[in-house]
Amino acid sequence: MAGGLLTDLYELNMAASYLHRDMDEPATFSLFVRRLPPGRGFLVTAGLEPCLDFLERFGFEDDELAYLRDELGFEADVLEAFHELSFTGDVWAVPEGRIVYADEPMLEITAPIAVAQLVETYLLNQISFQTTIASKAARCRIAAQGRDLVDFSFRRTQGTDAAMAVARTTAMVGFVATSNVEAARRHGLRAAGTMAHSYIESFPSEVEAFRAFARDFPTRTTFLVDTYDTPNGVRNAIEVIRELGLEDSLGVRLDSGDLDGLSREARALLDGAGLPHVRIFASGGLDEHDIDRLVSAGAPIDAFGIGTRMGVSADAPYLDSVYKLVEYDGRPVLKLSEAKATEPGRKQVYRGVDGDIVALRDEPAPDGCQPLLVQAMQSGERTGPPQTLDTARRLFEADLEHLPEPARRICDPESPEVRFSDALEDLTRETRREALRRAGLP
Amino acid sequence: MAGGLLTDLYELNMAASYLHRDMDEPATFSLFVRRLPPGRGFLVTAGLEPCLDFLERFGFEDDELAYLRDELGFEADVLEAFHELSFTGDVWAVPEGRIVYADEPMLEITAPIAVAQLVETYLLNQISFQTTIASKAARCRIAAQGRDLVDFSFRRTQGTDAAMAVARTTAMVGFVATSNVEAARRHGLRAAGTMAHSYIESFPSEVEAFRAFARDFPTRTTFLVDTYDTPNGVRNAIEVIRELGLEDSLGVRLDSGDLDGLSREARALLDGAGLPHVRIFASGGLDEHDIDRLVSAGAPIDAFGIGTRMGVSADAPYLDSVYKLVEYDGRPVLKLSEAKATEPGRKQVYRGVDGDIVALRDEPAPDGCQPLLVQAMQSGERTGPPQTLDTARRLFEADLEHLPEPARRICDPESPEVRFSDALEDLTRETRREALRRAGLP
Repeated sequence: MAGGLLTDLYELNMAASYLHRDMDEPATFSLFVRRLPPGRGFLVTAGLEPCLDFLERFGFEDDELAYLRDELGFEADVLEAFHELSFTGDVWAVPEGRIVYADEPMLEITAPIAVAQLVETYLLNQISFQTTIASKAARCRIAAQGRDLVDFSFRRTQGTDAAMAVARTTAMVGFVATSNVEAARRHGLRAAGTMAHSYIESFPSEVEAFRAFARDFPTRTTFLVDTYDTPNGVRNAIEVIRELGLEDSLGVRLDSGDLDGLSREARALLDGAGLPHVRIFASGGLDEHDIDRLVSAGAPIDAFGIGTRMGVSADAPYLDSVYKLVEYDGRPVLKLSEAKATEPGRKQVYRGVDGDIVALRDEPAPDGCQPLLVQAMQSGERTGPPQTLDTARRLFEADLEHLPEPARRICDPESPEVRFSDALEDLTRETRREALRRAGLP
Repeated sequence: MAGGLLTDLYELNMAASYLHRDMDEPATFSLFVRRLPPGRGFLVTAGLEPCLDFLERFGFEDDELAYLRDELGFEADVLEAFHELSFTGDVWAVPEGRIVYADEPMLEITAPIAVAQLVETYLLNQISFQTTIASKAARCRIAAQGRDLVDFSFRRTQGTDAAMAVARTTAMVGFVATSNVEAARRHGLRAAGTMAHSYIESFPSEVEAFRAFARDFPTRTTFLVDTYDTPNGVRNAIEVIRELGLEDSLGVRLDSGDLDGLSREARALLDGAGLPHVRIFASGGLDEHDIDRLVSAGAPIDAFGIGTRMGVSADAPYLDSVYKLVEYDGRPVLKLSEAKATEPGRKQVYRGVDGDIVALRDEPAPDGCQPLLVQAMQSGERTGPPQTLDTARRLFEADLEHLPEPARRICDPESPEVRFSDALEDLTRETRREALRRAGLP
């Protein structure tokens, strides 16, 4: 049991107040994204599995309680109540790998209000971040049109834990490998990588560096050819391939310059040398727009290493995600503020051929529609084993196949419209009237 | 000893090749930022202390070696050599909290080439990320012109570890508190926070929620007043303050709407009620541009909660940071590629009244200039105790005082020019000629 301090202080204050007043009625919170960032036509859900792990072991350690007592002045009755807390609620959620849009609940939690409130910070953090990355990486995947993608982002992600999550979510949307060795070990991914410019520079000449590397790794050499002069680097690679009689898994990597032109030049040199099986690998600050441009232009690039701009989702590094109280003690709830209005009640999202409908949880599924949220935890226990990365990948592939063209566009994508069911619209109106009355407003 | 797999596969390949060939000559790598992102006129160095911790304990665990053997096929002689590796080198670095610019080495490491190469990924990751955040937070600090700032970013940082680093680096540049309780505990920071909209909504009315919270936390209540209608919320807060006779540490928080207009309205209501000591706290998607606008307009806001856009450095979420081999076995080294050329040799940065000069490490300091890099590790040992957050804060304050106006501007900032010493320019020309010769180019 741990993780109780992985939260904002106000969550602890509110939980303390609820517990102190014996307010333990069930509350439902809904986690969703209010608006997609510019440049996004869809989201790929990710981060649920770490959240379920967190909820399973949620609680307070003695040293955490001591900190709350000694440094933050929480009272004895509250500390006692914190000591007893664990997550005993229900979770409904969209499984990792599925495509969703704004306004669609990705996770709904129903639990005694104190604990449902305490876990907000962690759940928002994980789902917002991992969904951000999965969605960006999925756009790279679309742009690559079947070419291989490798996660190269480790050195510039926002911390090392972020790098592990990036490797995992990129695998979810079809990246074939990662440069991140620890992530490969943890998540059973393929690790990929060859040499850096510094390797070339530490030898008396480029050809000597190539020769040394190829001798040490004869079955997996990709020659980095742009340290001094790219076409010359390709010629040196050809020389070493011939000299050592290399045959397997060969490539050249271009990491700078005009990748379109240089890849054509490299391809011509390799083909001219009777080496059509040597693959061309491109890297160097690429994102989905670069991939799209290169692939559309017909550049003979077989695989892309995608780093920083994907690994931090540089053009949209966060989501406008929220975790809103939608029901408390059986009563639907909403927030009135103009710009941040929410819809009340427990929900389900139904996907049909005409698009998605956000409905109340207990509404029957419209004809031919499939529910997106499934029950992931019941009374604090997972309803089944953790979802594997393979399953997430299959869910993603299936949803990708049906993704409307405007949503999948690389430039100026547009989300399909998401509708609210009549029953949800009715409940929203009623709850709004009630909230105005409570606020003493007309 | 651990952390050996917190790296990219190519680092392990290169290290294996070096070790296999008994290449253990000292290499110097230099970590610096090539260009500042648009919207940045300076950087605040951060991330060094976690790097020194990492280097102190760097090595391979048995299970890490088993993975390299079983899954990645590394050979017995290399695994044996990995098993023996630890970091035995020297580190020169700019201490955390200091202001630096593009082209200025923030860290230089000299060690046998295999280990110097292996640690690249971790060092780049930590220094790039933490410097990114410290620099963004420092701009908020400048915009706030003395008003209090609180880190509110935990829920939307790129992972929970990222949140811990954000809390620490914001404290370094003068934020007074963080909402992140675990970070407050780890780093000895002040934790801050009160209530969320969900708390208000879980009571029959706003005034009842305010009353309950104030009874539970009579000495630290900030009323969140925008759940239903902000001016009405302020009136409800006044009612509860009077009813309960509250006196200490009171505030109202505005989290949406026109913060300039609403803060004036709130101030007038509070002052009219004889409550001039009740502080006004503003939050809700703010960054340094919003702070600057509100402060310049004279909005009566006493403190700002700064979240997501600072916590991911939304407008510039990464730095163009590199870790370049600059010397190997006593020989200066550089990379020729046009767009990515580097300067060779071990370096020092000298700061004087006329600006900064990047020089060779062993050049004497120009008159009246102060060196920025200090020796942080010698032969694998720290040269002193870890630098405290207080020291980093003092270094930042001192540098901030001398930061030129164009660099500190919130809109369209400009860095001061950084010059290279004559000796460095000469060495660059010579090394370039030598590199062209090695590449077989004219």
